[in-house]
Amino acid sequence: MVVLGAGFGGLRAVQRLRRADVDVTLVDRHNYHTFMPLLYEVASAGLSANDIAQPIRAILRGGPNVEFVVGAARAVDCADRTATTTAGAIAFDYLVIAIGTVTNSFGIEGVDHYATGLKSIQDADTVRNGVLRNFERAAVEPDAAERARLMTMVVVGGGPTGVELAGALAELKHHVLKRDFPQLDVSAARVILIEATDRLLSAFPRRLQERARAQLVDLGVEVRLSSPVERLEEGEVHLPGETIAASNIAWVAGTAGAPLAIDPAPPRSRDGRIAVSGDLSVPGAPRVFAIGDIAYLPDAHGRPHPMLAQVALQQGELVAENIARDIEGRPRRTFKYRDRGVMATVGRRRAVAHVFGMQVSGLLAWVLWLVVHLLAIVSLRNRAAVLLNWTWNYARYDRANRLLTDDAVGGTREPQ
Amino acid sequence: MVVLGAGFGGLRAVQRLRRADVDVTLVDRHNYHTFMPLLYEVASAGLSANDIAQPIRAILRGGPNVEFVVGAARAVDCADRTATTTAGAIAFDYLVIAIGTVTNSFGIEGVDHYATGLKSIQDADTVRNGVLRNFERAAVEPDAAERARLMTMVVVGGGPTGVELAGALAELKHHVLKRDFPQLDVSAARVILIEATDRLLSAFPRRLQERARAQLVDLGVEVRLSSPVERLEEGEVHLPGETIAASNIAWVAGTAGAPLAIDPAPPRSRDGRIAVSGDLSVPGAPRVFAIGDIAYLPDAHGRPHPMLAQVALQQGELVAENIARDIEGRPRRTFKYRDRGVMATVGRRRAVAHVFGMQVSGLLAWVLWLVVHLLAIVSLRNRAAVLLNWTWNYARYDRANRLLTDDAVGGTREPQ
Repeated sequence: MVVLGAGFGGLRAVQRLRRADVDVTLVDRHNYHTFMPLLYEVASAGLSANDIAQPIRAILRGGPNVEFVVGAARAVDCADRTATTTAGAIAFDYLVIAIGTVTNSFGIEGVDHYATGLKSIQDADTVRNGVLRNFERAAVEPDAAERARLMTMVVVGGGPTGVELAGALAELKHHVLKRDFPQLDVSAARVILIEATDRLLSAFPRRLQERARAQLVDLGVEVRLSSPVERLEEGEVHLPGETIAASNIAWVAGTAGAPLAIDPAPPRSRDGRIAVSGDLSVPGAPRVFAIGDIAYLPDAHGRPHPMLAQVALQQGELVAENIARDIEGRPRRTFKYRDRGVMATVGRRRAVAHVFGMQVSGLLAWVLWLVVHLLAIVSLRNRAAVLLNWTWNYARYDRANRLLTDDAVGGTREPQ
Repeated sequence: MVVLGAGFGGLRAVQRLRRADVDVTLVDRHNYHTFMPLLYEVASAGLSANDIAQPIRAILRGGPNVEFVVGAARAVDCADRTATTTAGAIAFDYLVIAIGTVTNSFGIEGVDHYATGLKSIQDADTVRNGVLRNFERAAVEPDAAERARLMTMVVVGGGPTGVELAGALAELKHHVLKRDFPQLDVSAARVILIEATDRLLSAFPRRLQERARAQLVDLGVEVRLSSPVERLEEGEVHLPGETIAASNIAWVAGTAGAPLAIDPAPPRSRDGRIAVSGDLSVPGAPRVFAIGDIAYLPDAHGRPHPMLAQVALQQGELVAENIARDIEGRPRRTFKYRDRGVMATVGRRRAVAHVFGMQVSGLLAWVLWLVVHLLAIVSLRNRAAVLLNWTWNYARYDRANRLLTDDAVGGTREPQ
C-alpha cells in the first residue's frame, strides 16, 4: 500500500502499519518530516530548520516493510490503482492521501506576489530572511518613512499560527533587533496582526480569545479585528479605509487542500479538501483514504473536524486499523475524535490553553504549551536541540538562529 | 576606519579596535560569521548551518564604536580613501581588507560548472543536498551503472579540507546512508579523494601525511595521488588514463584571493592575493592593510604564511595594534607568526596533529582536534549546539542534519 505525505497523519499511519503484514511505500516531497507547529519559531529566528525537521529515513529505520520515495504526488487513478508522482507511477492496493493543505489566497489580489505563507521550512526561511534583510536595509536607509516601512511586519490571519507568529516577531523586535540595531529607532518598527473576523483564535472559548488579544497588545502588537484585506500591492496592505506600508507580509489567513488530480473526482469542500466517509475512505473508492488536513469530515454536530495535529494523528491510527480490519475481514470503524484541547503561545510566559475542559492563560498555559510541544517532537536529538535553543533564548532574551540565508548580497535594494 | 570582511582576521581586528578611540565600520556579505573549519561538517550532515554561523551583530553587541553593514566589497580607492560596497560607498581613514579567498579552478575545464567549492554555508548546503539528492535518485534508479554513478562522491584536493570532507563522507556512507537505504547496495558507493601531487596534507610532516592516508584508506576512501584533474564533464572526472563516473564532485583543490578592484593596483601573488609589507600594509598605501587569507606575506625563510585561522587571528591583532600605534605616534610592528601547529581530522578517533613540535595521530590527535575546535567556536550557544550534535553523532553513529533543503521536488531527474 501507498501513503502520500509524511506529515503527522501519514507518518502515524505508516508507523501503525509496520505491525501489519503489508508492504508500505511512503512518498513525500521532502526527505524530512516537518514539525509544523513550530514553523513560526523558525520564521522568527528562535529555532533552526534542523531542530524541527527529522529525516524520514531515520524515523522509518528498522522497518523492513516500509520503503520511502522522495517525490510529489501528482495524480491518483482509483480504478487503475495507480498513484503518479514526480518519481514515477506507483501501483497500490490501498492508498492513504495525507498531503495536507497549501496556502489559500482566496483569490485576493497581490497575495501570491507580495506575501509569504507559512506551510514549509522554505516559507519559514523566507519570512525570517525577509525580516532580517529589511532591518539591514533600514540600517542604511536615509529616508525615515522608508525605514519605518522596512521595519513594519504584517501578519494576516488571526488563527493560532498568526497569533504565535505575531507574538514571536514582537519579541524578536523587543529583545533582539533593538539591541542588534542600536543606530535604528526600533520603536518605529511595528508588528500588525490583521484578522478579517471580529475575533482571534476562533476555535477557542471567548474568554481565551480576549486573553490572547490582551497578551498580544501587551507585547506591542497592533491587533486589527474585522479588517478583511482588500488587496496587497508591493509594500502595501490595503484594508477598508486604511493602507499600511509594510515590507514584510506573512499570509496565514487560510489554507486549501493541496492539489491532486483524483479520478474519479471525489466530492470536495469549498476549500478543496476531500470530503471523506466516516471510515475515512473516499466516497466511491473504498480502498482510497484521505486523512489529516486534506480530509474534510463533519463531526456529529455537522461541524468539520479542525485541522490539528491531533486529528491527523488519530486519523492516521484509524486508517491503519481499518486497513488491517479489511485484511482480517472485520468491519471498519468510524472516526471519532478524542478532543485533546487546543493551545496557542504568544510569547514569554504568555499563552492560552483550553484543555481538559479548563481555560488557562498566562504562565501555566505557557508551561503546558512548552511541555506538550517538546514531548511531541519526534526525535530525541531534535527534542534536545529545541530544549537547548529555548533555554538559551529564554535566559538570554536571544534568538540565535537569525542567519540571512538567502544568499543575496548587500544591504541595498540593488544587490550586485 | 573600515574593515572589509568578518572572517577570523577581520573580526579579531574589530574586537581589538574596540579598545581604541576609533569608530569602526565592519562590512560583510553575510550577517553572520562562518566558522570555516567546520564547513565540511555541514557538507556531510554532521552539523547544521546555525551551529557554525554566528550573527555578527550578536558578536559586536555592547561595542558603541562599531557599526556593521551587510554588503559586498567591490572597489577601493586608496587616494580618495573610499571603499565601494553593494551597500554604498564608505569613506575611511584606515582600511583593513580581510575578504579572504574564493575557490580557484585554475582554469581547468568544467570545474565551474560541474563541481562545488566549499567556501561558504551555501557551498556546504549544496554539497550535502547533492549527495543526499543523488542517493534518493539512486533509490529509484533501475540501471546499476547509473546507480553507482549517483552514489560516487569525488573530492578533489588533498589539503586539510579535502581530507576532512572525504573522511566525513565515507563515515556518512558507512554509518548513515547504509542504514537509510536498505534497498540499495551501498557498498557500490565510492568516496574518492584526488590529489594532483604525490602527497596529502602538504603542510604536515611526512609521517603524518602517510598516517592520514592510511586512516582514509581504512575508512574505505580511494586515495588517488599524483592525479591531476584534466577536465570535468557532466558526471565525469577525467584523470590521466582514467575517467571516473561521479555525480557529486567537490572541488577543494585551491583558492585565489577574493576579487576586489584596488586603485592603485597593489602587487599580487600568482593566486591573486595581495602582497603586503611586513607591517601588513599594502605597498604604496600605508593606511590600507590586508590580513588573513587575502594577504600574501613570505616568512623569514621566504615561504608565504599558510592560509590558517591562526595566521588570520594573529594578523587581525597586529593590524589593530599597528593602527593604534599610528594614532599614538609610535612605530608599527612587523608581523611574526607564532606557529600553533596544524591538525586535520579524518573520522571517528582518527586524526593527525602537529603541535608543540609533536607529531600525533589517532585517538589523541582526534581528542585534541575536538577540544581545540570546540573552544575556538565564538559563541557559547553554538559551542553547546556543536557539542550536542557531536555527542549525538558519536553515540548513535548518526548525522541528524541530513535535510534536503534545495526545495526541488521529486526523486527523479525531471523535477515537476
